Amino acid sequence: MAALNPPLTPRLVRPLRIVAIGDELLRGDRADSNSPWLAARLGALGWTPDGIQQLGDDGGALSEALARWREEGGCLILGGGLGPTPDDRTRELVAAALGVELAEDSRAARWIAEREERLGYKFSPLTHRQALLPRGALPLANPQGTAPGFWLPGSASEGFLLVLPGVPGEYRALCESLFPPASAGASAENWLLVGLGEDKLASLAADLPGREQLGSYPSFEGLRLRVPGGIDGEELARRLAPYLVSRTGESLEAVVMGELARRGQTLAVAESCTGGLLGARISRVPGASAVWLGGVLAYSNAVKRDLLGLSESLLQSEGAVSEAAARAMAAGARQRLGSDWSLSITGIAGPGGGVPGKPVGTLHLGLGKPDGSTEHRQHRAGWDRENNRRFAVLSALGLLWKALKEAP
Amino acid sequence: MAALNPPLTPRLVRPLRIVAIGDELLRGDRADSNSPWLAARLGALGWTPDGIQQLGDDGGALSEALARWREEGGCLILGGGLGPTPDDRTRELVAAALGVELAEDSRAARWIAEREERLGYKFSPLTHRQALLPRGALPLANPQGTAPGFWLPGSASEGFLLVLPGVPGEYRALCESLFPPASAGASAENWLLVGLGEDKLASLAADLPGREQLGSYPSFEGLRLRVPGGIDGEELARRLAPYLVSRTGESLEAVVMGELARRGQTLAVAESCTGGLLGARISRVPGASAVWLGGVLAYSNAVKRDLLGLSESLLQSEGAVSEAAARAMAAGARQRLGSDWSLSITGIAGPGGGVPGKPVGTLHLGLGKPDGSTEHRQHRAGWDRENNRRFAVLSALGLLWKALKEAP
Repeated sequence: MAALNPPLTPRLVRPLRIVAIGDELLRGDRADSNSPWLAARLGALGWTPDGIQQLGDDGGALSEALARWREEGGCLILGGGLGPTPDDRTRELVAAALGVELAEDSRAARWIAEREERLGYKFSPLTHRQALLPRGALPLANPQGTAPGFWLPGSASEGFLLVLPGVPGEYRALCESLFPPASAGASAENWLLVGLGEDKLASLAADLPGREQLGSYPSFEGLRLRVPGGIDGEELARRLAPYLVSRTGESLEAVVMGELARRGQTLAVAESCTGGLLGARISRVPGASAVWLGGVLAYSNAVKRDLLGLSESLLQSEGAVSEAAARAMAAGARQRLGSDWSLSITGIAGPGGGVPGKPVGTLHLGLGKPDGSTEHRQHRAGWDRENNRRFAVLSALGLLWKALKEAP
Repeated sequence: MAALNPPLTPRLVRPLRIVAIGDELLRGDRADSNSPWLAARLGALGWTPDGIQQLGDDGGALSEALARWREEGGCLILGGGLGPTPDDRTRELVAAALGVELAEDSRAARWIAEREERLGYKFSPLTHRQALLPRGALPLANPQGTAPGFWLPGSASEGFLLVLPGVPGEYRALCESLFPPASAGASAENWLLVGLGEDKLASLAADLPGREQLGSYPSFEGLRLRVPGGIDGEELARRLAPYLVSRTGESLEAVVMGELARRGQTLAVAESCTGGLLGARISRVPGASAVWLGGVLAYSNAVKRDLLGLSESLLQSEGAVSEAAARAMAAGARQRLGSDWSLSITGIAGPGGGVPGKPVGTLHLGLGKPDGSTEHRQHRAGWDRENNRRFAVLSALGLLWKALKEAP
């Protein structure tokens, strides 16, 4: 499949325009996430687009954008409208704007047929239509779907027209193969921190030369920090050491799983209010099975009792959302699954379910350690249901990360 | 403050263009969330913009957009570049493009002074500069900040130019005062389908009058279908009945959980390769605890054996990724957790782990039913690890939805 991608070394020339196509973008049913993603990727290569646009499926505005590209040159990157249905008209519109006909591209046809064979069922004729490309276009293999992308060099071999499927996973996979990641060196580093907020970060970095160039981006994956080359990275790393998970953008879960793999130790989980979100995040890491055994989703009290061994008296006296329950869940998961480490989460994610003394957002996290002891951490989160759950997962992974750091 | 807003009843005429201004939008540091938000609000009023654009601070592209508006008429809504700093040049650029001078607007100046007094501290002279407006513009009070918006009627009293601050809270507050919320009625329905692709949809709807107005959006939440008022919804619903989950946009998991709650029945899960993603999706539904008991994350074979009761001989002869394992996992979860229904997922999500006969993407799903029988479904998914997992969750929920539909 990779062999199909021509050796495109896109020569970026100005003006550089990014266009996303789809009526849903104009109706506000969906925001265009592809274009800002690509802009950031190109930005890391030193290129900022001259404009980004969202256009509808009707074709008028797209034809105008294509005519403009033919006239002014430069690079035009189109995303969307390559699917199999009749409202996917980008192929036709590009062919019409360039004054060429649509014809089946044999490489694209072969690639679709190979995918069909690999997946073991028949695609519809509409799907096979996706091998039709404007004559002269070079197909680009789509590693994530059936619609090939394609590109055309610009006039005087300056610039190009690049046409990509709009489905975000497909768009990004193709762009990743076309535009190499920024080279190391001059470019900024992408750090990940846990357990500190932007205000604390600001005070820790307050007198660091160049601190105004730091870019910080909080999320439930952790606090991302963009550290440009001009900053003294070693000094900053010293100050942020208690929170610094990675200086390469590696995720919190990948760092934790890598460390456990290095030690030859295993992990199990017990989740109540997060319902699987912690396990889902841990198992995002390819090869997680070397470390992660699995866990128990103990949503009901009966499951906490029967599969994790919580006593009826504990559930009655302390309640399922309590420090005692979190510790017992962690201990139970570690014991029942036979792991070295364990994490547990219990809480009231909302919107309902709050009681006096245990308001919505109450979270109790437990950590089971190789020596059989447990640790506990408690929060009162103030987001909505889904974000309270995401925060609980982040904090639980942070708890384990910290324990691993402190017990080398 | 509200009294400052002129009685603007914006007369929307075509073409309607939305433009967001800011270098950070082109660099991909921030995505433009204002424009899709406004598009959705206007869409509910029956208006879809003809295009959305993100432009930089440098002014060239904005001047071009303004010249185009003067030439073609219609409505142009600009957001951004009204702040107090020197890179906020929208006021100047609008004045230049319209050939008028910038002058202090007494209403805007009074409003800024009132805000200063209310907040009890002195604004900088830069902030007061925000009262400068292109001559002829009508100021719009900003309930959330210091920069007033403004508008200008178009030529021949058709259309307008509306200029708004780019800070999302300010942008939205001003739009909310200008564009009333949609009245119910004519707007489109948001359907959700499972188990059919866009090509099948196209053939089922092929001869339906107005079918070209249908908008379909596949995702791992299901296939969303926008059904405008002009379509015969009853006829379409008849044709799509085997796949039609909701006509209100209600999610697949919410529909399934609602149906189980209606029946007073319960659900448990057993997950291997999805590692908690199914449970996480089920427990997104507020109040899930009425139906969902929990489950077992059986990532390792030992957990499949110890907590779900799979026999060593089954694991040896059939393997953990097999129809037999999926059925046994479903039966085990149902039995161990004491639920009426159960779902199981086992598979090879990738990128590694494929073996001859069981390539990456092989998925086996199991369904445990109240009568103790099991059903099975099998796939070969062709995405990357995370999307193969998402697809497995979608298909498992679809399997349960179908079974509930067939056993009313």
